Amino acid sequence: AVHGARNMEDYGRFLALLVSALQVGFVAVILSLVWVFHYREGLSWDGGAGEFNWHPVLIITGFVFIQGIAIIVYRLPWTWKCSKLLMKFIHAGLNTIAMILAIVSLVAVFEYHNASNIPNMYSLHSWIGLTAVIFYSLQLFFGFAVFLLPFAPVPLRRAVMPIHVYSGLTIFATVIATALMGITEKLIFALKNPAYSTSPPEATFVNCLGLLLVIFGALILWMASRPHWKRPPEENAKALLPVGGTPEGTEAESTMTDGSHADKADLRINSDAARKQNLKLDEAAQRSTM
Amino acid sequence: AVHGARNMEDYGRFLALLVSALQVGFVAVILSLVWVFHYREGLSWDGGAGEFNWHPVLIITGFVFIQGIAIIVYRLPWTWKCSKLLMKFIHAGLNTIAMILAIVSLVAVFEYHNASNIPNMYSLHSWIGLTAVIFYSLQLFFGFAVFLLPFAPVPLRRAVMPIHVYSGLTIFATVIATALMGITEKLIFALKNPAYSTSPPEATFVNCLGLLLVIFGALILWMASRPHWKRPPEENAKALLPVGGTPEGTEAESTMTDGSHADKADLRINSDAARKQNLKLDEAAQRSTM
Repeated sequence: AVHGARNMEDYGRFLALLVSALQVGFVAVILSLVWVFHYREGLSWDGGAGEFNWHPVLIITGFVFIQGIAIIVYRLPWTWKCSKLLMKFIHAGLNTIAMILAIVSLVAVFEYHNASNIPNMYSLHSWIGLTAVIFYSLQLFFGFAVFLLPFAPVPLRRAVMPIHVYSGLTIFATVIATALMGITEKLIFALKNPAYSTSPPEATFVNCLGLLLVIFGALILWMASRPHWKRPPEENAKALLPVGGTPEGTEAESTMTDGSHADKADLRINSDAARKQNLKLDEAAQRSTM
Repeated sequence: AVHGARNMEDYGRFLALLVSALQVGFVAVILSLVWVFHYREGLSWDGGAGEFNWHPVLIITGFVFIQGIAIIVYRLPWTWKCSKLLMKFIHAGLNTIAMILAIVSLVAVFEYHNASNIPNMYSLHSWIGLTAVIFYSLQLFFGFAVFLLPFAPVPLRRAVMPIHVYSGLTIFATVIATALMGITEKLIFALKNPAYSTSPPEATFVNCLGLLLVIFGALILWMASRPHWKRPPEENAKALLPVGGTPEGTEAESTMTDGSHADKADLRINSDAARKQNLKLDEAAQRSTM
């Protein structure tokens, strides 16, 4: 009973953080729309300012909010009864949507620049932003090839997973940093009379949007890095586990944020005695998450 | 022999990353000096542009480079024979130096603004930057109170450690994001004829400095989040360990980046059977790191 109460409390804490993250992310998307419709020229696709405005809206919707959800989708407890493959498709699908929105938002800003004779790719924002998009597409390609297609052997998946998780979280943080640079640029360029430095309402409003992006990023990183909120190893796969082996379905359990699998791999190689302990420990860990 | 070779290879990989991080961080500090001396007005303390220039130099030196080193100082293998307390003093000392340099750099920019009648605290850069400094000082205060002073009980240390590690890495990433916003602001304001958008040499030069900051951050986060590069638990403390207990000296082993201790704590509470496994596993883990 104590055990159950402990797990319920932990479940409640996860849910509270999830709802907070969804709210903060959703409000950020709404604020980006209020920004472009109330303070700016709205949305259009004619090479003018209205086309540029798709850039912040789509980046915040896709590259920040949807990417953030994609990162934590394995951690939603009610998905643990779904197959791992289904969750991989949802993870890959959300990231693909985020990628498409990011590319459309880049097209918008390039077309706007070209129509207005503004140079492309001169700013630190553009350098780091384009680098992030390139790394994101590589991450998507290699994630698809290694984890979704059935060809990669288990040791390769196990070796690549910590890199996949690290790259994903680092790209996500870099995207938010790039969004903050973009907000800074846009407010300096757009606010002339009154200037950004005189804190007109739009400046304060969009600064708050920037703060929300940081809070959203911090919440996602916290949720993604708590080891006890990870999807538990597959029950079926576990039952079939040969001594010293690891089922295919659990490769995603070894993340940047939890060394237990990596540590266990070390033990498996280095210590014959530890091998059996390890299996028993896995069983115990499984019991403790039920 | 295979085991030894594996560990040597891993040690070599750590060393290569450490040298890369030190080089990238050092070059970033040098580039910040070249920026202010070659392209800008140099350094002075007279309310003019030369006083402002302390701001990027001290932030990059202290709040990025020294903070980054402070984060990974427990992971240097040749310090594992030093006492944990000594390493805590070095970690706290480096962070205190970083904090002092950050505060001096804030004084520089406020005095420059006041002397030039430029408003303070209007930009997103200033909002997030000041928030980061406040959280950094809280982190320093609570880190000192909980982990360095001998009063906090072990369960409190164990509960606070994952928060300490998460906050530290999140603040570090936020500081780098803030530095990128600062670079963006400064290049837009300072480069007028020729403008930032025409990519004069200073723009390209300082964009490269910004890229180095991102690479430095990515290297530090990778090194800080590999569980197998953690400082191993204390040998002496381990020998004295009562069944189910955890020695004081190992509380820093449970980091954001490694759930094994948190998982073990769960097991200790939830499963009587797992308790003994756990201790044997610790021993095996220790053997594997020797």
